[in-house]
Amino acid sequence: MTGGETVHGRTVGGLGEAGILGILNRRFAAVPAAEDWPEGTVGPGDDAAVVAAPDGRFVITTDAMAQDRDFRMSWPATAPRGAAAGGDFAGGYSTGWKAAAQNLSDVNAMGAEPSGLLLALTMPATTSVAWIDGLAAGISGAVIHLGASRCRVVGGDLGSDDRITLAITATGDLQGRPAIRRTLSARPRRTPGGADPGLDLVLCGRAGWAAAGLEVLDTGRQSLMRRLTSAPRAAGAGLHRTAALAAAAQLRPRPPLGAGRRAAEAGALAMMDVSDGLLKDAGRLATANGLRAELDPDWVRTEARALAPLARSLDRDAEDWVSAGGEDYGLLAVVPAGGPTGAQIPPGFRRVGRLVGRAGETDESSSEAVEAVEASGDPDGWDHFAAPLRSRPQSG
Amino acid sequence: MTGGETVHGRTVGGLGEAGILGILNRRFAAVPAAEDWPEGTVGPGDDAAVVAAPDGRFVITTDAMAQDRDFRMSWPATAPRGAAAGGDFAGGYSTGWKAAAQNLSDVNAMGAEPSGLLLALTMPATTSVAWIDGLAAGISGAVIHLGASRCRVVGGDLGSDDRITLAITATGDLQGRPAIRRTLSARPRRTPGGADPGLDLVLCGRAGWAAAGLEVLDTGRQSLMRRLTSAPRAAGAGLHRTAALAAAAQLRPRPPLGAGRRAAEAGALAMMDVSDGLLKDAGRLATANGLRAELDPDWVRTEARALAPLARSLDRDAEDWVSAGGEDYGLLAVVPAGGPTGAQIPPGFRRVGRLVGRAGETDESSSEAVEAVEASGDPDGWDHFAAPLRSRPQSG
Repeated sequence: MTGGETVHGRTVGGLGEAGILGILNRRFAAVPAAEDWPEGTVGPGDDAAVVAAPDGRFVITTDAMAQDRDFRMSWPATAPRGAAAGGDFAGGYSTGWKAAAQNLSDVNAMGAEPSGLLLALTMPATTSVAWIDGLAAGISGAVIHLGASRCRVVGGDLGSDDRITLAITATGDLQGRPAIRRTLSARPRRTPGGADPGLDLVLCGRAGWAAAGLEVLDTGRQSLMRRLTSAPRAAGAGLHRTAALAAAAQLRPRPPLGAGRRAAEAGALAMMDVSDGLLKDAGRLATANGLRAELDPDWVRTEARALAPLARSLDRDAEDWVSAGGEDYGLLAVVPAGGPTGAQIPPGFRRVGRLVGRAGETDESSSEAVEAVEASGDPDGWDHFAAPLRSRPQSG
Repeated sequence: MTGGETVHGRTVGGLGEAGILGILNRRFAAVPAAEDWPEGTVGPGDDAAVVAAPDGRFVITTDAMAQDRDFRMSWPATAPRGAAAGGDFAGGYSTGWKAAAQNLSDVNAMGAEPSGLLLALTMPATTSVAWIDGLAAGISGAVIHLGASRCRVVGGDLGSDDRITLAITATGDLQGRPAIRRTLSARPRRTPGGADPGLDLVLCGRAGWAAAGLEVLDTGRQSLMRRLTSAPRAAGAGLHRTAALAAAAQLRPRPPLGAGRRAAEAGALAMMDVSDGLLKDAGRLATANGLRAELDPDWVRTEARALAPLARSLDRDAEDWVSAGGEDYGLLAVVPAGGPTGAQIPPGFRRVGRLVGRAGETDESSSEAVEAVEASGDPDGWDHFAAPLRSRPQSG
């Protein structure tokens, strides 16, 4: 089942392109319903694939990932327990999972259902076959375990390079619904009394766990053990488990597929996924609408509670992780403010803040929010090309 | 118009992500009809794009290109004469053109019309802004000048890395036609007399020019001039022009968009584009159908004539260029053999060979063809990962 025995210790240079394709296609055949392609569609092996788009439109997105920037060859070698294709994947499993997950997340953020994935991969001839096998198993694993049951790996391209880069492209089907964009589809109507109901920011998924996980993975194993075991007895009991969960959140993020559709059906006015951190991404959502984002400090404080003991043992601030940490791939939506009952909040979402007018236009209640997000140039987000160049969190 | 003054000498590290996106989007706005997106579709700036698929299906393909493997930073800096966006693009123009062209070619090879392009780009902060501006102008240039009038750049992703890699994804619309695949859609019916009409290989586009151009580009300027001017007087007159045309074929390949649709309408049974050389790609087409490909040596000889003087001056064999050179992106189709009148050949195509049964099954006329293509492992084609690793022609 795993193929681990036959590929162990070999490099892709010894396999040739046909051999590599054989390994990839075997893994991708595990994706649900690969044997049952709709009439008129075409899978891997031709110049291009043909994917069904019953809606008459399709959603499409792409993400590039580079070795040592967006993933590490040193990442833990094992697939998660319970994964169908467990075994020694030399870190490739997590990289494949993450690459697929972040693209599926972008499709989700438009309110669509994933329909296809393409993989463009460059690598040196010295790349281990086990790593590539793991990469393919991780991509299939994410599709299966995140519940993208109509999604197939439809094609890709292989090339050689000195380092590994992969670019995944995902497509999705809107099933007749309008796409939920970053710009508001409508402004909520004023109530009969004339009051502006306002706009709430709501989140599905966690925040801060992937950033915490990066710290865990970046702390050497011995140093990590020393820090965790020297924590006060009260905190120590759950600390190892928190650290393991945080690492899993970084290695195998779980975007809430399906929540995009639910938010669309519940009347979300705008939406995006949180890839670069709540502060930066909420700021983008605000900027796209000429508004300003405010995170609710009470929510940040509450959300940070579960991470606080781990943060203390690593000399970090859990509230920073929650408000500025990226790569959790939660869904951030804008809904008409529902008041204390939260009646407008889609199922599975929580209120994390609000959108208000730009500075000078805020109403009197704005004093509740202290973490106002500037429209641009937020120092807590990631900009791949800010000067001087700052590397992404993974390479920090 | 060119923006060359404002970006000259700067690097992307000084621009930040927003600045880079501004430059890219300005160039991509030049692609035809970008201002006129169909109802319900979404362009760049959101988590994903939404592209029209009136057919209810769409074609999708991706290609990865790596610096020094698939393109060179040292490629000539100027855009072709007559290009709307001429100027100093530091070689990026040709790279962008080529990346777009090879993906548009894959869409063409399925018999579809290009509808969208995505660009996933990784690069170091030290990358020159002029190069990136040229890349974007080259992508737009290919879309415009190759006639992909319904195609738009719909999105992409930026990341940082030590070297430049780009992965372009293209989508296409089949306009209600079946996709033309590598596997035969049908076997031609026997004639009333019982004879098997056989299968012809027909090509739209040239072969060998891009390979010749690579030799021209790889020969130092002084050495090239010395070789060209020392040629016999009879050959010398057209030699500089042939060399320039060959270089242009390598830098800015011109896949015959529209020929895919014409071949489909004319009843082509199978089709692919020629990216890795006629011998290798015809072999793939044959293998996909359990057959063997034979190139017509008379055609190869005739096709090589225009390149022969250049080949002699560079100590190369023009027939090798024609039969094994890649990256011309012609369209290779299989049609029922039409006899000497060529009645079955789609407009713009020429007969270059045929498909026959595997060794032992060929009929008596097979002695006409000497360049039989083995089913696999052809030594004249490119395999990115053959052992020992052979680099692609561009890095040779």
